[in-house]
Amino acid sequence: MNFLSDNNFDKIHVLLKDNPYYIYIGSGILTEIPVFLKDSYNYPHYVIVTDDIVRHLLGEDLKKILDESGVNADIINFSNGETSKNLQTVETLARDMVRLRADRKSCIIALGGGVVGDVAGFLASIYMRGIPFIQIPTTLLAQVDSSVGGKTGVDIPEGKNLIGTFYQPKAVFIDIGVLGTLPVSQIKNGIAEVVKYGVIKSPELFELLENYSEQIFNLNPDIITRIVKKSCEIKADIVIKDEKEGDLRRILNFGHTLGHAIESLSNYDIQHGEAISIGMSLIGKISEKMGKTNPQLSEKLSNLINKLGLTTLIPSNINTNDIINSIKSDKKSQSGKIFFILMQAIGEVLISDMVPENLIIEAIEELRG
Amino acid sequence: MNFLSDNNFDKIHVLLKDNPYYIYIGSGILTEIPVFLKDSYNYPHYVIVTDDIVRHLLGEDLKKILDESGVNADIINFSNGETSKNLQTVETLARDMVRLRADRKSCIIALGGGVVGDVAGFLASIYMRGIPFIQIPTTLLAQVDSSVGGKTGVDIPEGKNLIGTFYQPKAVFIDIGVLGTLPVSQIKNGIAEVVKYGVIKSPELFELLENYSEQIFNLNPDIITRIVKKSCEIKADIVIKDEKEGDLRRILNFGHTLGHAIESLSNYDIQHGEAISIGMSLIGKISEKMGKTNPQLSEKLSNLINKLGLTTLIPSNINTNDIINSIKSDKKSQSGKIFFILMQAIGEVLISDMVPENLIIEAIEELRG
Repeated sequence: MNFLSDNNFDKIHVLLKDNPYYIYIGSGILTEIPVFLKDSYNYPHYVIVTDDIVRHLLGEDLKKILDESGVNADIINFSNGETSKNLQTVETLARDMVRLRADRKSCIIALGGGVVGDVAGFLASIYMRGIPFIQIPTTLLAQVDSSVGGKTGVDIPEGKNLIGTFYQPKAVFIDIGVLGTLPVSQIKNGIAEVVKYGVIKSPELFELLENYSEQIFNLNPDIITRIVKKSCEIKADIVIKDEKEGDLRRILNFGHTLGHAIESLSNYDIQHGEAISIGMSLIGKISEKMGKTNPQLSEKLSNLINKLGLTTLIPSNINTNDIINSIKSDKKSQSGKIFFILMQAIGEVLISDMVPENLIIEAIEELRG
Repeated sequence: MNFLSDNNFDKIHVLLKDNPYYIYIGSGILTEIPVFLKDSYNYPHYVIVTDDIVRHLLGEDLKKILDESGVNADIINFSNGETSKNLQTVETLARDMVRLRADRKSCIIALGGGVVGDVAGFLASIYMRGIPFIQIPTTLLAQVDSSVGGKTGVDIPEGKNLIGTFYQPKAVFIDIGVLGTLPVSQIKNGIAEVVKYGVIKSPELFELLENYSEQIFNLNPDIITRIVKKSCEIKADIVIKDEKEGDLRRILNFGHTLGHAIESLSNYDIQHGEAISIGMSLIGKISEKMGKTNPQLSEKLSNLINKLGLTTLIPSNINTNDIINSIKSDKKSQSGKIFFILMQAIGEVLISDMVPENLIIEAIEELRG
C-alpha cells in the first residue's frame, strides 16, 4: 500500500519554496502513519514529543503502532499547559534527546495541541541546529491554525512567544477522529479561528459555519473535514506568499491584537476562542465606525459568533485603559505603529495603522457585558 | 563619506543565496561603524550584546561612538566565559531586550569572541522569531573562524553547541587593531585555525605561516590582515557551497573531532588552539599510516605547529580509551559513523568514514608527551 496515493485522505500541498510539504486530513489517519513514514521518509529514529495528558490519551498508542511496524521510536513528554511553554522545558527535552542518542538524522513527531506544537517545533529547530519534524495536531485549534505557518516558540515572563523560530514541518497529519476526546470549550477555541478564516478570505466558509453549527459541535466528520481543510488551505495560501510575517500575513491577525490583550488581561481565565471572538467583534464595530463596512456586516459577524456559542462581550473586570496600553506593547507593533486588520466584507479585509484611539475606546464601551 | 566605497578596508562578499553579506577587514574599522550603519542599514534601534570584559575594553567606547553619531544604541552584557554559554543567559538577555523595547526592527551587534558571537547570534535568531544582527569578532579565533558560517549556539550539560541555529549576520566587521589587547595564548587559538585553512585549501597560506611566524606574534597589521582575509575567504567559499553542513563543509572539521575530544577530556584546561593542533598532528599521523600522504608532509605540519609555539603532544593524563569513546559520541557522528578529514597534500584533504580504530590508537600512542 502506498500512503501517498491512498484516496481515503484529503491532502493539501503547502508549496513553500525551500520546504514544501503535505498536510493530510482525515479520520483515522493516526493508524496509517507507520506506512507513511516507511514509504516517504524512513528516518532511522523518531522521537514523539508530547505532554503528559496526550501521552496517556494517544502517545503510548502511537508508539505501540510504530513499534509493531518496526519503526524505531522513543517518546518523551512535559507537563500539559501554557506554563510549561518555556526555555527550561526545551532544555529538559533536549537533554532527554541526547540521552536517547537522537542525532541529526532523528525526526521529532510533535503530538498534541498548540503548546506541544510550539515547543516541539522550536526544539526541532534548535536541536543540533535543526532536525526534521512532523506535526500531529490533536486539538481543533492546532489543526486549523498552529499546524500551518511554521511558527514555533516559547514564552518568557515579559510575554508570550517572544522567543521562537520560523521552522517548517516535513508533514502534518490531521486526524479529526481524535477530536472526540476534547471538551466543547476546546472545539470552540478552534471554531473562533475558523470564523476568522471566513471573514478574511472565504464567504463560503462563513456560510458553512452559519448553516452547520449543530453538525460542527456533533463533530460530524464530513463537516469538520471540510472546515479544517478550507481553513488550512486559506492559511497555507497566505503563508506560501509570505513565509516570514511581512504585510500579507498580517491579515491572519484579524481580531487577534485586541483578542490577545483581553486574553492576557484576564490572566488567561478567558479562553483563546472567546478572546478572539471578542476581538473580532470589536474590529467589526471599529470597521463600522471608520466607514469601512456597513452595520449589517458587523451584525452578521456577531450573530455567527453567538450562534457558535462564543461571546462578543468584554467582561466588566477588564479595564478599557489596560486594553489600550496592552495593544501598544504588542510584539507585532513595529517602532510604535499598531496595525489593525479591518473588515470590508465577508471574505475581504484591509490593513490600517491609522485607527484613532477614541474609536477603539468607543467600540470597547459598546461591547461591555 | 561612503563607507562601502572607502578603500582603506579589505572586504569579502559572502554570496549566500538568501543572505549575502560583506565581511570588512582592517585596522581601526570600529570607529567607522556609525557611518556604515547610517549609509547601509539605518535600523531604528541597535543593541550591543557583549560580555563584561569586552564591555569594559571596547563596548562602552563603541556605544559612545554610536551615541555621538546619533545612532540609537543600547548595550547589554553577560559574564565572560564558556560557562555563560547556556539557555539561562539567552533568556536573561531576551528579557533585557524586551525591557529596552527591542522589536523586530531592532538589530543586535555581537561584540566579542566566539562565545559572544555564538550567544548573541543565537539570541538574534530566536528573539521574536529572528531579528537582524551584525558581528564584530574581537579575538583572532572568532575573526578567522566563528564570524563566517552562520553557526550559533549554546551548551547543555550533555555537550557543547547541542542547541543552536544556522543564522547569517547582515555584516561582519573585523578590526585587527583590537587584537593588541589579547594575551598570546589567545592569538595561538586563532593561529591553529589558520594552520587548518592552509592544510585543507591553501599552500600559500601555509607558507605565509612558515615564513612570518615572528611578524604574526608581533601583530604586524599587514601580515595579520592577509591571514585573516585568506582564512575568511576559504571558509566563506566553503560555506557558500554548503550552508548547512553537508559533506563539503565537513573539511572544516580537519583535526577537530580528535581535538574536541582532547579539549573536553582535559576539562578545557587545554586551550582550543592547542587541542586542535594535537588533533591535526594526529590526523597527519593517521593519514600517513593509511598511505594517504607521505611522512614528509606529516612532519612539515608538525614543524609548523611547533614553530608557531603550539603543541603536537597529548598530555599523559588523557587516556587513549577515553579519546576513542569521546569521538564515538561526537554530535557530528551520524547514526554511528565517524567521519575523518585526512591529509593528502598541503591544500588537499579527503573525507573518510573508514579509519580503522587501531590506527587511531597507534597515532595517539606515538604522540604521547
